[in-house]
Amino acid sequence: MNEQRNEQKQTESAYARAGVDIDAAGDAVGRMTSHIKGTLTPGVLTEVGSFGGMFALSALGSLQDPVLVSSIDGVGTKLKIAFATGRHGTIGKDLVSHCVNDILVQGARPLFFLDYFGTGRLEPGVAAEVVRGLADGCRAAGCALIGGETAEMPGLYAAGEYDLAGCIVGWVERSKIVDSSDVKPGDVVIGLASDGLHTNGYSLARQALLEDAGMTLDAPVPQLDGVTLADALLWPHRCYAPSVLPLLELSPAPIKAMAHLTGGGTDNIPRVLPAGVGVRIDTGAWSVPPLFRLIQDAGGVSEAEMFRVFNMGIGFVLIVARDAAEETLSRLRASGETAYLLGKAAAGAGVTFV
Amino acid sequence: MNEQRNEQKQTESAYARAGVDIDAAGDAVGRMTSHIKGTLTPGVLTEVGSFGGMFALSALGSLQDPVLVSSIDGVGTKLKIAFATGRHGTIGKDLVSHCVNDILVQGARPLFFLDYFGTGRLEPGVAAEVVRGLADGCRAAGCALIGGETAEMPGLYAAGEYDLAGCIVGWVERSKIVDSSDVKPGDVVIGLASDGLHTNGYSLARQALLEDAGMTLDAPVPQLDGVTLADALLWPHRCYAPSVLPLLELSPAPIKAMAHLTGGGTDNIPRVLPAGVGVRIDTGAWSVPPLFRLIQDAGGVSEAEMFRVFNMGIGFVLIVARDAAEETLSRLRASGETAYLLGKAAAGAGVTFV
Repeated sequence: MNEQRNEQKQTESAYARAGVDIDAAGDAVGRMTSHIKGTLTPGVLTEVGSFGGMFALSALGSLQDPVLVSSIDGVGTKLKIAFATGRHGTIGKDLVSHCVNDILVQGARPLFFLDYFGTGRLEPGVAAEVVRGLADGCRAAGCALIGGETAEMPGLYAAGEYDLAGCIVGWVERSKIVDSSDVKPGDVVIGLASDGLHTNGYSLARQALLEDAGMTLDAPVPQLDGVTLADALLWPHRCYAPSVLPLLELSPAPIKAMAHLTGGGTDNIPRVLPAGVGVRIDTGAWSVPPLFRLIQDAGGVSEAEMFRVFNMGIGFVLIVARDAAEETLSRLRASGETAYLLGKAAAGAGVTFV
Repeated sequence: MNEQRNEQKQTESAYARAGVDIDAAGDAVGRMTSHIKGTLTPGVLTEVGSFGGMFALSALGSLQDPVLVSSIDGVGTKLKIAFATGRHGTIGKDLVSHCVNDILVQGARPLFFLDYFGTGRLEPGVAAEVVRGLADGCRAAGCALIGGETAEMPGLYAAGEYDLAGCIVGWVERSKIVDSSDVKPGDVVIGLASDGLHTNGYSLARQALLEDAGMTLDAPVPQLDGVTLADALLWPHRCYAPSVLPLLELSPAPIKAMAHLTGGGTDNIPRVLPAGVGVRIDTGAWSVPPLFRLIQDAGGVSEAEMFRVFNMGIGFVLIVARDAAEETLSRLRASGETAYLLGKAAAGAGVTFV
């Protein structure tokens, strides 16, 4: 795995003069290897240095009609908080958790992950920290970090900056795909608490907090019980797979639909509803965490916009039949989630706040 | 598929003020959709707008012991040529072809591809051109463009610039993995001609041609038979799957090992050799194309470095038993490849030029 990291072994004067530091690449690979190895699962066949990462589906046991579910994503301008603070150890976990949640929506469990790290001048310590975070996220989700590319591109990124993207592949039996087709008026909407902003709305959050209000990242914030903005803004994206996947194994499966509330906030819910069905959300069912109110006040952002840009304290939504609601809530809480009964599905379309 | 492109639907003043243009995102998605739909294959289950792209393995027919082979990559600073010329229509094909070739090395055929497009300010026309190139590459390789992320990150990229990464997933029956274990001294090394620089060495090429020699991209170059540098440097990465995959279906399969000559050039060959076996390459077996000599002269680059940074005219290598060499060469040539008998495997290690 991580084949491209091993491709650049030569140290040559002209290439170095053109801004590509092959020694730094080798150093970075060395630092990453132990993190990566800690994520490998029984399906992984490839040794480090192969061109492609290999995963044997036989490791999953007997499969009936398997469907691969995949997603690719980035971290957005949450990266700017990592750059400003020099704290790069959790950005990778953000990315993995985001991707795991995205395929969880369809009932898929993760198999493997590949990352792309692009930078202007490779700093091996930073790259290794980022990969450590990726490995943390992968281990927590039972997902192998099977491939990666570390690209040094002089002149494309500002000094000390980088971009990070990643791709997840998971699987689900076709008969167990969560496809929302059975959602009916009267079904219950359950929300799971987020851990901060996750990975969305950072351009607006930075504008409001750091520009408009002139706050600093390292000062404790009274409205956040003395937590610094850096800590609050870097809090990793929560991964819902450990608590939600066991529910998908129940028979009959209680979950009719799920949504991951990323960019667009509650606008993500209608994406997983059948035609003619909307949801009514009781805004009193949970308290919007103080960090969101701080951003709203600092930037003078309307309530409607807040709900469309940010998760506002709810990171993942499940829709279940009314008679499955209590047990589902109990199971989720027993798994460590803060779970709310948010509202219900109703004839109509979109999200109505009541 | 391409779910994240659909997540950003809201148009809001504060978010726009923070530099994120949701209208542009919607415009870009609209322009991309027809390109994407043209790539979809029978295995694809997902409608546009789903959280994860879905591919049903049942579309592949009866599988014995399938292994997924995956790779992630970028285009490197070839992007800078696209920025400088405003020609964005082939960069996507570069990326797909690179990834397809990487998993072809292990005998895998592509299933699906996901792309990540990160930019500072989204220009829908540019993004759509990039996706058109991705779709071209995917169609040529029989690969579905099943997912993508278009990320607008104000302040992370310079005006008019972007980064592009992509992930491929393919498959191979475990018994048909090309794993090099059977390579023996006396086996024959076949090389397939590249189409220009492919996607490696662009930082050095730009330094040598544009900085050291002060050449311009749009002037015809006598040494290149009057082709402009822009045309020569943007020539897309060749995809070897259409000519090589049929050889993998032969019984007995003639191919013992393959290597994709990317960054590191011929140094990629030892990566797919067993211990105790090296290769002897006859440098007279092919002519290094004039573009490489132009770079070498312009930058004063040593011959050794040229062979380690660039593909020098050979983009892909196959190793076959001596008695299979002639027929393999014939088949490759009949498929449209310019194929050379480069040399042979020999006791030892690494690459020896003779």
